[in-house]
Amino acid sequence: MASPKSLSRSPFSTVNADAIVSSLLTVQTTGRGFVDLTAEIARFVGDAGAIEGTVMLFIRHTSASLTIQENADPSVLRDLTMALDRLAPENAGWSHDTEGPDDMPAHVKTMLTTTSLQIPIMKSELMLGTWQAMYLVEHRLRPHRREIVLQFAGHVG
Amino acid sequence: MASPKSLSRSPFSTVNADAIVSSLLTVQTTGRGFVDLTAEIARFVGDAGAIEGTVMLFIRHTSASLTIQENADPSVLRDLTMALDRLAPENAGWSHDTEGPDDMPAHVKTMLTTTSLQIPIMKSELMLGTWQAMYLVEHRLRPHRREIVLQFAGHVG
Amino acid sequence: MASPKSLSRSPFSTVNADAIVSSLLTVQTTGRGFVDLTAEIARFVGDAGAIEGTVMLFIRHTSASLTIQENADPSVLRDLTMALDRLAPENAGWSHDTEGPDDMPAHVKTMLTTTSLQIPIMKSELMLGTWQAMYLVEHRLRPHRREIVLQFAGHVG
Repeated sequence: MASPKSLSRSPFSTVNADAIVSSLLTVQTTGRGFVDLTAEIARFVGDAGAIEGTVMLFIRHTSASLTIQENADPSVLRDLTMALDRLAPENAGWSHDTEGPDDMPAHVKTMLTTTSLQIPIMKSELMLGTWQAMYLVEHRLRPHRREIVLQFAGHVG
Repeated sequence: MASPKSLSRSPFSTVNADAIVSSLLTVQTTGRGFVDLTAEIARFVGDAGAIEGTVMLFIRHTSASLTIQENADPSVLRDLTMALDRLAPENAGWSHDTEGPDDMPAHVKTMLTTTSLQIPIMKSELMLGTWQAMYLVEHRLRPHRREIVLQFAGHVG
Repeated sequence: MASPKSLSRSPFSTVNADAIVSSLLTVQTTGRGFVDLTAEIARFVGDAGAIEGTVMLFIRHTSASLTIQENADPSVLRDLTMALDRLAPENAGWSHDTEGPDDMPAHVKTMLTTTSLQIPIMKSELMLGTWQAMYLVEHRLRPHRREIVLQFAGHVG
């Protein structure tokens, strides 16, 4: 069965699934905002000898999260912060407030974004689009030490 | 330790992790809305000889995203579009507006949905539920050419 | 190129990618709310002999979803339920209402959370953070029977 004309697919690349390479990344945040992880993940992929497969990021927290977003105009990140604040405002009658007014909004923001990312690797390159960067999003006001598990699965050389 | 009565688990299936099969899917959208990718992904899985493992979709953009949603009643997709418009309205005082009033809402909608999907394969079949379909969601008003990396990891035959 | 001082990365662990182990988990929900799956997933990982790799959960439904959230204070789960109700209220003029007023909000809530989770395994342990638990989120008011595909990919012993 052929694909519709609006779709086209490149020929396959097939490789052996050799290896799992894991590491733990620790990130010191400076409080609420986005931390660009892209260069660090590219280093991990290079150091691991990853050729084809997928790299996963998994954040071990419930008040900080991960997202893939625009890397060009810094005003995008400010607007995304504003959007999350509107979707999960501090002054919303939360019953969980023992850890401060920014804690429950941080959990909601984590739920609305994600705790894990998967990015494919082909020909030793992260297959991010031109405008995509990988971000840790710190949702708490104060600085925190955050841990992210990195894991590549696929073909190494 | 036994599982609680509300949970039950089937016997294992175990296979060798043989191969990574990758391809690039190009989709021409017709502007804001949902594009059903399910048949195309089923073709990729069949052509790759995938028997057991996981197929990943990764969209290389920040103003279009992916989701798994109901495939039966088209009014669900219209309501989902309305829900996203309410969560990320155009008229919300965004500071990033150089690419048009639909651009910043598109980034927020991408953040609230996802840039990657993972669907398990067993016995050569996508393990989607009866009512599940995989969709590309175009968030920009005008048509765009979108790229999605497809990658199967697992046992092939 | 060295990492910035705010980032540090542990030495690699590299293992063979041996096996894919799959199973189907059935969960009987009791209506709207969160079901903690963590103990059951830990049992699956142990029974599968998983040493290093990733376990994936995939829910085969569009009105129930998955999330990783705080496991300590039950008020967090109540607040998350309230947050989802506010983001996807029943009384919002949905056109899809043939399956009841809680059905379309359930689809929106599924879109805003996720249908798949990935959790890394190292040294035979789930790499969840101290406060993280894996939850099925039932978005329908009435009890439902839900199916989740479990799949470990990696090194087994």
